[in-house]
Amino acid sequence: MRYYPEKVEKLIEKLIKFPGVGPRSAERIAQYILEEDDCVVLALAENLIAIKKDICLCKKCFNLSEGEICDICKDESREKVLCVIEEVKDLVFIEKTGFKGVYHVLGGNISPLEKISPDKLTIPQMTERLRKEPVEEVIIATNPTPEGENTALLISEILKKMGIKHSRIAYGLPVGAEIEYVGTQTLKKALEDRKLL
Amino acid sequence: MRYYPEKVEKLIEKLIKFPGVGPRSAERIAQYILEEDDCVVLALAENLIAIKKDICLCKKCFNLSEGEICDICKDESREKVLCVIEEVKDLVFIEKTGFKGVYHVLGGNISPLEKISPDKLTIPQMTERLRKEPVEEVIIATNPTPEGENTALLISEILKKMGIKHSRIAYGLPVGAEIEYVGTQTLKKALEDRKLL
Repeated sequence: MRYYPEKVEKLIEKLIKFPGVGPRSAERIAQYILEEDDCVVLALAENLIAIKKDICLCKKCFNLSEGEICDICKDESREKVLCVIEEVKDLVFIEKTGFKGVYHVLGGNISPLEKISPDKLTIPQMTERLRKEPVEEVIIATNPTPEGENTALLISEILKKMGIKHSRIAYGLPVGAEIEYVGTQTLKKALEDRKLL
Repeated sequence: MRYYPEKVEKLIEKLIKFPGVGPRSAERIAQYILEEDDCVVLALAENLIAIKKDICLCKKCFNLSEGEICDICKDESREKVLCVIEEVKDLVFIEKTGFKGVYHVLGGNISPLEKISPDKLTIPQMTERLRKEPVEEVIIATNPTPEGENTALLISEILKKMGIKHSRIAYGLPVGAEIEYVGTQTLKKALEDRKLL
């Protein structure tokens, strides 16, 4: 059953695929697009095309970039601390904390089940990079999931062999959480890694 | 503070303007667009351009249309009952109920305060249309708000003078609601308009 002209129905189908957008929100966004000025919608369309054309991955750290090398890698004032992360979105969250080092985006986690071996990730590029440009420390900031832990372990072994100082981001209580709700494993880690005051 | 390449930041700014999309969802949608296949995103961009180019308002009922006359107005099997509504989105909701008549989209409500007089709406086109193509009944389905009521009243006066049978959609309890929560005015209307069984 079609309630809108075909092109509008097709747009709604595409909008439903956006994360967090259901059928009702997709209809509302389509209404917004229909009502919005032509130039605003055309600018959006051009923006989409430009992003697919011009945004690539930084050859050095695999962050999103408009050129071969991303703005963070270009910035010489950055500290010589390399933060290893799973995905580009993690980079944004860490940037927001005020971290001033550089990054290396792995592109995922190793997973024997899904046949993702270390060379499917950017681990070879990471070791290559560390050989050329030594850093003071590598912070392994993969997610605190079993897959993230596995990947962290593997990277730790590589860095140990290379004799590079490295650390794992801390486990503990999330700020604002209540002990009652954080789960036994988190609480156990928080107790083990307690900090002397 | 920029966390993404400029073009991505610009896209996020545009996505935030979508109804129901906040800064966090806009980032997630941008991530989706970055990760999605080029052809999917280009199809979306083309769809946006096509909508602004090809979708206009039906010359007869002011519904969205890909040609001069919309699919509903073209459909000769439709009943000769005209449902007058404020906005195109109301049409979609009424279609979903299985209504089989035709529509007339006013484009809003009369509002002396905002200087929206009847001729700023499609009321002249409605009377013109009713003169040329008589219908069995006009259902006034503006919203049950003070503005919608005012507009309904004005249309009712026009139709009375023209000698056209017309009705107002019913007030009453929303299906699934509890009497406790519906509000005094709704309950009063529901009692007044009770239906003999």
